[in-house]
Amino acid sequence: MTLGKIDDDHFHDECGVFGVFNRKESSNLVYLGLYALQHRGQESAGIVSTDGTTFHSHRDMGLVADVFKKRDIARLRGKHSIGHVRYSTSGESDTRNCQPFTFEYVHGGISMCHNGNIINAASLRTELEKAGSIFNSTSDTEVFMHLIARSSGKTTQERVSEAAQPLRGAFSVLLLTEDKMIGLRDPNGIRPLVLAKLEDGWILSSETCALDLIGAEYIRDVAPGEMVLIDNNGVQSFFPFEQKAEKRFCVFEYIYFARPDSTLENINVYQARYNIGCELARESQVDADIVVAIPDSGTPPAIGYANISGIPFHQGLIRNHYVGRTFIEPKQSIRHFGVKLKLNASRTLIKGKRIVLVDDSIVRGTTSRKIVEMVRQAGAKEVHMRISSPPTKHSCFYGINTPDESELLANNKTLEEMCTDIGADSLAFISFDGLYRAVGQSRDSHCDACFSGNYPVPLNQRTECKQSVLKFYNKGTQHE
Amino acid sequence: MTLGKIDDDHFHDECGVFGVFNRKESSNLVYLGLYALQHRGQESAGIVSTDGTTFHSHRDMGLVADVFKKRDIARLRGKHSIGHVRYSTSGESDTRNCQPFTFEYVHGGISMCHNGNIINAASLRTELEKAGSIFNSTSDTEVFMHLIARSSGKTTQERVSEAAQPLRGAFSVLLLTEDKMIGLRDPNGIRPLVLAKLEDGWILSSETCALDLIGAEYIRDVAPGEMVLIDNNGVQSFFPFEQKAEKRFCVFEYIYFARPDSTLENINVYQARYNIGCELARESQVDADIVVAIPDSGTPPAIGYANISGIPFHQGLIRNHYVGRTFIEPKQSIRHFGVKLKLNASRTLIKGKRIVLVDDSIVRGTTSRKIVEMVRQAGAKEVHMRISSPPTKHSCFYGINTPDESELLANNKTLEEMCTDIGADSLAFISFDGLYRAVGQSRDSHCDACFSGNYPVPLNQRTECKQSVLKFYNKGTQHE
Amino acid sequence: MTLGKIDDDHFHDECGVFGVFNRKESSNLVYLGLYALQHRGQESAGIVSTDGTTFHSHRDMGLVADVFKKRDIARLRGKHSIGHVRYSTSGESDTRNCQPFTFEYVHGGISMCHNGNIINAASLRTELEKAGSIFNSTSDTEVFMHLIARSSGKTTQERVSEAAQPLRGAFSVLLLTEDKMIGLRDPNGIRPLVLAKLEDGWILSSETCALDLIGAEYIRDVAPGEMVLIDNNGVQSFFPFEQKAEKRFCVFEYIYFARPDSTLENINVYQARYNIGCELARESQVDADIVVAIPDSGTPPAIGYANISGIPFHQGLIRNHYVGRTFIEPKQSIRHFGVKLKLNASRTLIKGKRIVLVDDSIVRGTTSRKIVEMVRQAGAKEVHMRISSPPTKHSCFYGINTPDESELLANNKTLEEMCTDIGADSLAFISFDGLYRAVGQSRDSHCDACFSGNYPVPLNQRTECKQSVLKFYNKGTQHE
Amino acid sequence: MTLGKIDDDHFHDECGVFGVFNRKESSNLVYLGLYALQHRGQESAGIVSTDGTTFHSHRDMGLVADVFKKRDIARLRGKHSIGHVRYSTSGESDTRNCQPFTFEYVHGGISMCHNGNIINAASLRTELEKAGSIFNSTSDTEVFMHLIARSSGKTTQERVSEAAQPLRGAFSVLLLTEDKMIGLRDPNGIRPLVLAKLEDGWILSSETCALDLIGAEYIRDVAPGEMVLIDNNGVQSFFPFEQKAEKRFCVFEYIYFARPDSTLENINVYQARYNIGCELARESQVDADIVVAIPDSGTPPAIGYANISGIPFHQGLIRNHYVGRTFIEPKQSIRHFGVKLKLNASRTLIKGKRIVLVDDSIVRGTTSRKIVEMVRQAGAKEVHMRISSPPTKHSCFYGINTPDESELLANNKTLEEMCTDIGADSLAFISFDGLYRAVGQSRDSHCDACFSGNYPVPLNQRTECKQSVLKFYNKGTQHE
Repeated sequence: MTLGKIDDDHFHDECGVFGVFNRKESSNLVYLGLYALQHRGQESAGIVSTDGTTFHSHRDMGLVADVFKKRDIARLRGKHSIGHVRYSTSGESDTRNCQPFTFEYVHGGISMCHNGNIINAASLRTELEKAGSIFNSTSDTEVFMHLIARSSGKTTQERVSEAAQPLRGAFSVLLLTEDKMIGLRDPNGIRPLVLAKLEDGWILSSETCALDLIGAEYIRDVAPGEMVLIDNNGVQSFFPFEQKAEKRFCVFEYIYFARPDSTLENINVYQARYNIGCELARESQVDADIVVAIPDSGTPPAIGYANISGIPFHQGLIRNHYVGRTFIEPKQSIRHFGVKLKLNASRTLIKGKRIVLVDDSIVRGTTSRKIVEMVRQAGAKEVHMRISSPPTKHSCFYGINTPDESELLANNKTLEEMCTDIGADSLAFISFDGLYRAVGQSRDSHCDACFSGNYPVPLNQRTECKQSVLKFYNKGTQHE
Repeated sequence: MTLGKIDDDHFHDECGVFGVFNRKESSNLVYLGLYALQHRGQESAGIVSTDGTTFHSHRDMGLVADVFKKRDIARLRGKHSIGHVRYSTSGESDTRNCQPFTFEYVHGGISMCHNGNIINAASLRTELEKAGSIFNSTSDTEVFMHLIARSSGKTTQERVSEAAQPLRGAFSVLLLTEDKMIGLRDPNGIRPLVLAKLEDGWILSSETCALDLIGAEYIRDVAPGEMVLIDNNGVQSFFPFEQKAEKRFCVFEYIYFARPDSTLENINVYQARYNIGCELARESQVDADIVVAIPDSGTPPAIGYANISGIPFHQGLIRNHYVGRTFIEPKQSIRHFGVKLKLNASRTLIKGKRIVLVDDSIVRGTTSRKIVEMVRQAGAKEVHMRISSPPTKHSCFYGINTPDESELLANNKTLEEMCTDIGADSLAFISFDGLYRAVGQSRDSHCDACFSGNYPVPLNQRTECKQSVLKFYNKGTQHE
Repeated sequence: MTLGKIDDDHFHDECGVFGVFNRKESSNLVYLGLYALQHRGQESAGIVSTDGTTFHSHRDMGLVADVFKKRDIARLRGKHSIGHVRYSTSGESDTRNCQPFTFEYVHGGISMCHNGNIINAASLRTELEKAGSIFNSTSDTEVFMHLIARSSGKTTQERVSEAAQPLRGAFSVLLLTEDKMIGLRDPNGIRPLVLAKLEDGWILSSETCALDLIGAEYIRDVAPGEMVLIDNNGVQSFFPFEQKAEKRFCVFEYIYFARPDSTLENINVYQARYNIGCELARESQVDADIVVAIPDSGTPPAIGYANISGIPFHQGLIRNHYVGRTFIEPKQSIRHFGVKLKLNASRTLIKGKRIVLVDDSIVRGTTSRKIVEMVRQAGAKEVHMRISSPPTKHSCFYGINTPDESELLANNKTLEEMCTDIGADSLAFISFDGLYRAVGQSRDSHCDACFSGNYPVPLNQRTECKQSVLKFYNKGTQHE
Repeated sequence: MTLGKIDDDHFHDECGVFGVFNRKESSNLVYLGLYALQHRGQESAGIVSTDGTTFHSHRDMGLVADVFKKRDIARLRGKHSIGHVRYSTSGESDTRNCQPFTFEYVHGGISMCHNGNIINAASLRTELEKAGSIFNSTSDTEVFMHLIARSSGKTTQERVSEAAQPLRGAFSVLLLTEDKMIGLRDPNGIRPLVLAKLEDGWILSSETCALDLIGAEYIRDVAPGEMVLIDNNGVQSFFPFEQKAEKRFCVFEYIYFARPDSTLENINVYQARYNIGCELARESQVDADIVVAIPDSGTPPAIGYANISGIPFHQGLIRNHYVGRTFIEPKQSIRHFGVKLKLNASRTLIKGKRIVLVDDSIVRGTTSRKIVEMVRQAGAKEVHMRISSPPTKHSCFYGINTPDESELLANNKTLEEMCTDIGADSLAFISFDGLYRAVGQSRDSHCDACFSGNYPVPLNQRTECKQSVLKFYNKGTQHE
């Protein structure tokens, strides 16, 4: 069984998790939690509930509102439930990889879902296969399941603790047994996970925005390396990892990934983005007529930029809210069809003006190039691009979907070359100092590997790690 | 056959129309046009094409992207196509009323769709039935079809002109025969309709935003009372209505209904909304800390308000972009569930602040009340509501879905009572003067009946007119 | 609008109708009635109910069990309902032509469905279009609707009677108004229609087999030319046709079309088929080893043939009961794929034997040829084909789907040529005398035009009639 | 995790398997094979193909024709494929249990499906779980997968042979690796499996009827305890089981389960059934007027009975061919609704007659009772029931769905009591001697445990075995 064609856009999962312990209609609450976390994953959604005896599961490809019908939620009986949303840039459907996974082993049933990426999953899998394990998904999560099943621990807490030892990477995991819900965060705390309360029930969620919808009360962020075990006696806290590690929270959650109404590690996401815009204005002022955001994550920094620079903010690019998955393009080609489906440049506002265009990042540069051209065709006299992140020079191996380094515009070009490439009159990125001033916290406690190449979890060999990640997506069966 | 229960939220249609004449893959272009007009109607979508001999039709309930699959578009062969999107607040599905309608009569086939409302359709229908006509939809459009079929005119142009004479109300109609496309606007020009060109083909569209997506060139707005007849010889213009009338364009298109990147009657919609916010700031300044918009149509006036007042604009209410049709609410009720699904108030931004909240209108007041309360629960010290339209005191009978007058908050209460009712610290609406200053045109040439009660098309008897409208939605068959 | 390509397999409708008056859950009973009549039409199904005020309709392409879900039946409220199943050999879907049709006219609502074919519908339609009528289906039924709407009659009974005068052809029609159900049979009584009772409710059905399922009691066949009008006062009988005509019941209903457990015009269908087999054995005995039926309509005559001839009957051709609509054939062609999907020849039974093969008819001869070859490949020493109808030499214009005369094998060839063509060792058809002896009634009172060319309803000009029929299927819009 | 409610109707799987090795479009051929085996399982269908590198899988609940669309078959690329149909009497849907299963282990990928039942699966599973295995279906097949993965064998052949040793029960298994197809039959050969050839490709199928459809040539039945291993070198045969066992083929395949056009173990199924009818006539003659079959498996013995007794055979019970899954019954109950949906008694044929009614078996007796009553209501003077199997007194644990012994009519009552219970005038079952005379083979080589209680595979403890079987259907997760 050899490796097939590599699909670069598919080898990392971006995800959201949400769990409810000890609430009537727990699956309905998880459904709403996932709905609020929909931006973390639009490819598939799943919920597993337990009534204390049996596990009930419903998972499918699609948006939360499409995957779950009323009768599905009704069937997900029980007071404890966990759920998951997953993102993929590819249209491929593979329900086999939809989480949460549920297995049975000698100690009963267990269900699991996670946000992040276990970077040594491939080598762990090889060892497990040598010991006679069989796999039926391509997900790194399944490795953790096998480690738990083979653990000699006496209690669930001991087994999960033991099984977690060899895991490397970024993972915010939820586990559900017949009578316990567990939340586990990797030693660096790269991906977010928060604990909350809803009357006599407990909640674990990727972000706080999901708490607001159901009226739950935020308690605290689960700490890096912490395992919270929730049962009928309440919440217990453990720190199972022998390995020592520093907190390294993903700074890109603030820049792009999290929802602006979330507060993560005590930092409000909208406020952080707005502040970045302010810093950007201070660092790279320009003489211009209006500030225009590329919606949606460019909007808060654009407002900040406008407020500090004194240049008025306007909605010069209008987003179409009804963008679906696939649109039928005529054979007679339409210029910039893909970008136009999502955005329209307002000629009236832009014509004859010098524009500051604010975006969150430049990845391959293709979209930036099209938008700059669209803005010029709408009559802009000058286009000054301002980016609310440092240049993206490296791949993320911890759960954010980024292309191979070689495809990243910033990895190959100088600032001037990048500016020319995207066709702007000027281009500036936020500095690392400006970024962390805006966030208001020290750089030490964050992961900014995609900008700096400074990976908190050692990648023994870059190519090995990458192949190990890729292996799961190319080996094995395709379920269609 | 007596009248049944009246469904107030269903008796007016909001719609969008789009037509293409003489372009390969015309149905694919209409599909994209409808996609850009999706905000004008999310209930149903339909396209009819003709290859010069046969008409091909595909219509269904749902969003454009859901209704049409690639093979549907492939089957809609021919160089001429017209399409339609329709809105309804009710979840009822009735494919029988999906437009365009296609009929055959002695002179061949004809397909038709329209945006607006023919207010004397009920009495015309009664007369037609007396003369032996049979009806199979509840749409006012079918009346126009029968009048065309019974016309003695020698040419399509003559028949359509003759049939249009008795029609009263607001209507921007598209008609398609085997070799002609016709656009017809009511004598007051209440609903928009624009003419555009795409190479050797012609386009008719409700709004200009749909032109941008397919790269068509805007030519001009079809004039009030004008009929444009497009065939292989190009565009001919007629003014068929004997009845004299003044232009009375719907001002609510600027305030709420049209997309901000459209330009209608030479006025850019975003600019108009922004200007209203500026005027509102001048008219009703208040001492506050931040300006927050209720997205999306409150955003441009909020930016305007902020710029004039000097109070910073912030995204204090975050909109969830994945709102679907129906969500499953748990039996354990969640406070303000409906509003929370769409909007979340950012505690960090709002707490301890005096807020200027900008919205486009207050209808029944229920939503405003919930949002004000949500903002207060997020910690707002003061909430000052500013509305970018005058108070909505009257029903629209010309194609915008509004409840009965008795249900309108402004119809029953003074400004102070309204302010108390929605729980705000202060409340102000834009004045008529401010509104038309912002739009930059004279009030004479606009319809603002929903605010002023000044109906451009005489309603002989209010109740009669209303019943006549309602009749179509209660009499007759229900197709499920 | 010119005529397009003619689809020979689509120009006649085979249908079944079922109506219930004055029973709770009337739509549920109609649903079951249609299910029992499913053999009369598998393309589309529809039910219209009325609660005395409003009509409720549900119609779609597909089998009865697929078209109606529990909630559809629940929505079809009211004590009166009519329903329809329709057959088509083509896979084309056109929900617009699904019956029953429902219209509104000056006297209220009316719903209609029919089994048969109005042969002068095209010319009547042309006249109606000249008078300003518009059409939106391609069905001949719509012509009758317009004639009723334009009638000057004072009562429903008068209007239907007047409108029926110009109709020519075969038609068993059901009509439903808010408070009446009407059954109308053409003057020759070509298609069946029976009247039954279920406690205090009344039933009209194409066949008696549908009565058994719901436990209704058969009263009598509706007479040729009779109109039964059912309302709260019971059943009234009228004979509206001025034109005089003899009863000419379709003999092919006995041979092939009706279900064997039905009794039509006092003749049990199974018994008639069995008797034909007996007569066939007497008329064309042959020395053979076993009698094999081509299921299902060949089975009763095969049993009859076996009993008279003394040659044992065996199931040598096994029918697959899971035949769906479409099957995916590999590119590597499989011999006789289509026939093999439905039938399998049992080698064990057939090998080395002389076979009498009994079928109901030979149309184009293609299927017969394949089956004879399949039986020979299974090892048959001799194959003697016996047909339970006379040779099919002419097209049916009265509601049975038959190809054009030129395509009929019997129209072109002698008996010997036909035998050679299908590859049999001998071939015999039942004689007209034998057929009517078996049925036990006089030939005068039957239509056997497809065998004899003796059309009971004069076809002024053959080609004109045919074109008139075809017109509806080629003119006009295609709904896909 | 305790056991929940036991669903008696669900604890055995009836299945069909079909595999193709080394043919272009192998998945399309498997699709057709499954279609011909549809009678062996209507609940779910699945196909897995391999192109030598990757496995492609498509499985879902439903009939073969509904589960697979053209594009699904197109995606199932590769020259080797295996497929499976499964039966369940319950409407529960659980795609997780749809076969074939596909896993990866240290030696590559492997896919598997089977017909039958591994009776010691529960205890094997417990042992595997103790050793750290995790399970994600409730199927006994998954146990075999784990045993293969944990085998120390050097080749696929060795691993499968080793893993098969501990298995007890009835199993005809297909396995597919990247370059091999394996067929394995349990030592008693309880379930059927045949080997065939299609040009240069090889076929394994549950029954021969599936070979006829695709034109494959029957080679031989796989022997009891034989493993056939097919790769590019052709077919190799092994007998891996150390345990000695006699052939004990399931006699109920002849009576009811297999399709009449199949030949299994050199016995044609139709011929066996016909012969049983002949023996039954000899054993329990009765003075009567007509012989009527309860279709479909009662038809061949009814023809046999008629031929020997001289009493004419007639289709007195007509089967409705359009029976779907669920029908909507009105609240106003209809007598014998369930039976009437499937069968209708022909009054004309039955009235005043003495009837011999032939059926394949009596299980609970409920259906027999209803049919006898229906025949009496159609006017039968006498009803003599003749059954083409011995009385069903015991449960099957080898792959046929039978209720618990306590629910079997024959387990509780004498022949006279049974006759009274079903309301017949006389009742007779075929004797064991008559049965095996009809089949033409010795009783020693067959399993008739459901009639005799003589189980070929020892059930150490009846209740233990039953619980062990049930365990899989009650423990664990429910996927809905």
